[in-house]
Amino acid sequence: MTALPRKVAVVGAGDIGCGWAALCTGAGWPVTVFDTNAKVVEAAFAEVPRRARALVALERATHGIVERGLLEFHAGRSLLQAVQDADWIIEAISEDLLVKQRLVESLELVAGPQVLLTSSSSGLFPDDVFARSRHQDRCLVAHPLNPPELIPLVELVPGTRTAPAALQRAQAYLRSLGRMPIVLKKPLPGYVVGRVAAAVWRECIDLVLAGVVDVSDLDRAVSLGPALGWAAAGPHLTYHLAAGGGVAMFLQHLLTTFEAWWSNLATWQKLEPDQQRTMIQTIEREYGPKVEMLRAARDRRLSAILRALEQSRST
Amino acid sequence: MTALPRKVAVVGAGDIGCGWAALCTGAGWPVTVFDTNAKVVEAAFAEVPRRARALVALERATHGIVERGLLEFHAGRSLLQAVQDADWIIEAISEDLLVKQRLVESLELVAGPQVLLTSSSSGLFPDDVFARSRHQDRCLVAHPLNPPELIPLVELVPGTRTAPAALQRAQAYLRSLGRMPIVLKKPLPGYVVGRVAAAVWRECIDLVLAGVVDVSDLDRAVSLGPALGWAAAGPHLTYHLAAGGGVAMFLQHLLTTFEAWWSNLATWQKLEPDQQRTMIQTIEREYGPKVEMLRAARDRRLSAILRALEQSRST
Repeated sequence: MTALPRKVAVVGAGDIGCGWAALCTGAGWPVTVFDTNAKVVEAAFAEVPRRARALVALERATHGIVERGLLEFHAGRSLLQAVQDADWIIEAISEDLLVKQRLVESLELVAGPQVLLTSSSSGLFPDDVFARSRHQDRCLVAHPLNPPELIPLVELVPGTRTAPAALQRAQAYLRSLGRMPIVLKKPLPGYVVGRVAAAVWRECIDLVLAGVVDVSDLDRAVSLGPALGWAAAGPHLTYHLAAGGGVAMFLQHLLTTFEAWWSNLATWQKLEPDQQRTMIQTIEREYGPKVEMLRAARDRRLSAILRALEQSRST
Repeated sequence: MTALPRKVAVVGAGDIGCGWAALCTGAGWPVTVFDTNAKVVEAAFAEVPRRARALVALERATHGIVERGLLEFHAGRSLLQAVQDADWIIEAISEDLLVKQRLVESLELVAGPQVLLTSSSSGLFPDDVFARSRHQDRCLVAHPLNPPELIPLVELVPGTRTAPAALQRAQAYLRSLGRMPIVLKKPLPGYVVGRVAAAVWRECIDLVLAGVVDVSDLDRAVSLGPALGWAAAGPHLTYHLAAGGGVAMFLQHLLTTFEAWWSNLATWQKLEPDQQRTMIQTIEREYGPKVEMLRAARDRRLSAILRALEQSRST
C-alpha cells in the first residue's frame, strides 16, 4: 500500500491550483500553495480555505477549517521553500508549453528525485511537458476537471519514460482523495475529456450561431437531456441499452441516421473574432455578471448529484 | 389553461412508444397503445405496466397500477379503434421517413382535425414527416430521449405550418407530464440533442478504435467527468464559470487550446463494417448480455440524479 504524501506542494494558485489545494486540505493533508504572482497568492489565501469549508458544507470533505501550519502560501521567488519536504508536487500553472517546461526545469533543481511530479495540463503531451526533466520516471499528467475539488474524474497520462511505480503512486494518492483516475493508453491532443468537450462545445456554439436555439435553451437541453443520460451511463453503455437488444441492434437500426448527422455536423476549426463577440455577448446577456452566485448554485447541484450517485451505488 | 388530454394514443409499441405510454399511464391518463405487429404489442402489454410500476418505485410517478380500462392495447388493422376519442396521438414508430409519412396519411383518415399529432422523430424535418397531412397546423415533432419516462427533456420542433396553439398545447401536455420542453427556432438534421450526441459518440468511438482508452474507461471518464459538469450546468454556462472571469476570460485563455483540438477531432462520416464489428465486440465484451440488469441500474442512477436536482433546486 502506498503511504499518503506527508506534504503536497501546489505550484500555480489559479482556479485549478486552488481546487487541488482545497481538495488536499479537505482530506487533512498538509499543503503548500505557490505562485510567482503575489496578487494571485493573496487571492488564493482566501479562496482555498473558502473552498475547503464549502466542501465540508456540501458534505464532500471532513477537514474544512485548517489547523495552523498545515496550509501555507508562498509567493515570488521562494519556490525552493514552497516545495521542500513535499513528496507530491502538483503543477497547475497556465496551459503554455514553454512556461510549463521552464517550471519543470526549475523544479528539477529543488525537488528530490523521489518526489512525484504531476502536471494539470488539459491536453499537452507529457513527453513535451517534462522534456527538460532528468527524472521523467516520476513525472506524469494528472488532469482534473473544473472544479477539481468536486468532479471525481482525473485523467492520468503517462509519458514514454514514466515508471509504473509513479503511475501507481498517483492512482493511490488520487483514490485517497476520493478521485476516480482513468489511465490513457496513449496521449492525443486534448486527451479524452478535452476532445469530447471540444466536440460538444463546437456543436453547441454552432447551434447558437445558426439561430437554432438560444444559449439558455441549449444549456437546458444538454443538462436535462443527454448529460443526464451520460452521467447515469457512459455513451457506449447508453447505446448498448437504447434499442432493447444491445449495441448490435442499435447500430442496425440507427447507424444510417447517425451517419447522416455525422456528415452534417460543424467542422470549423477557428472561432472568428465576430463570432467570439457574438458568443460572449449572448452568454453574458443570459447569465450576467453573477458568476459567483451561479458557481455556488452549480456546485450545490454537482454535490447533490455526486451524493445521489454514491447512494444509488451503495443500495 | 390547456385542458389535459382525455385520452392519449401511442402509435408504435417499441422502446420509445412503451416509454411514452408508461409516462402517461404514470400520470393517470387513459392511454391506448397500437402497433401493426401483434408480437410487439404483446411485449408492450407486459412492458408498459412494468415501466409504470418502476416509475412509482423510483418515486417518479404516482399511478403505477392501472385502473381497468385506462390502458388498452390494439394490434394489426385496428388503427381507427385505437385512436378514436384520443385528443393526443403520439407517433413512435421507426425512424423511416416514408413509413412515417404513410402513417400520417392513415391517421388523417381516422383522427379529427382537433387532435394534436406529435412525431417522436429524432432528427427528421417536420415538414417532411407531415408532408402528406392536410392538417399540418396541429402537427409537430416532440422528440423525447431514451428512456422517455425518465429523462425530462423533450425537443419540440414546429414545422412551417404548425399553429402556435398546437405548440402551446404540446408544451402544456408535456409540462403536465413533468417534462421540460425546449422549442427549436428552426430544424436541422438531428435537431439539438442528436447533433450533440453524434458529435460525442463519433469522438468516443474514435478514442476506442485508436486504442487511447478502452470502452469502460471511456464511459467512466465521460460519466464521472464532463457529463457530471454538464448535468449541473450546460456547456455554455460551464465555460462562463470556468476561468473565474466569465466566458470572455475563458476564451482569452483557452480558445487557442480549443482551436488546436478542433483541428484534430475525428471527422469521419461512415463507420466501416470492420469498425462496427470491433465496436460491437468490445462493447459486448465489456457489458455482456445483461442488458436488463444494466438498464435497471442505469434507471436507478438516473432517478436518483433527478431527485437530487429537484431537491437542490427547491432549497
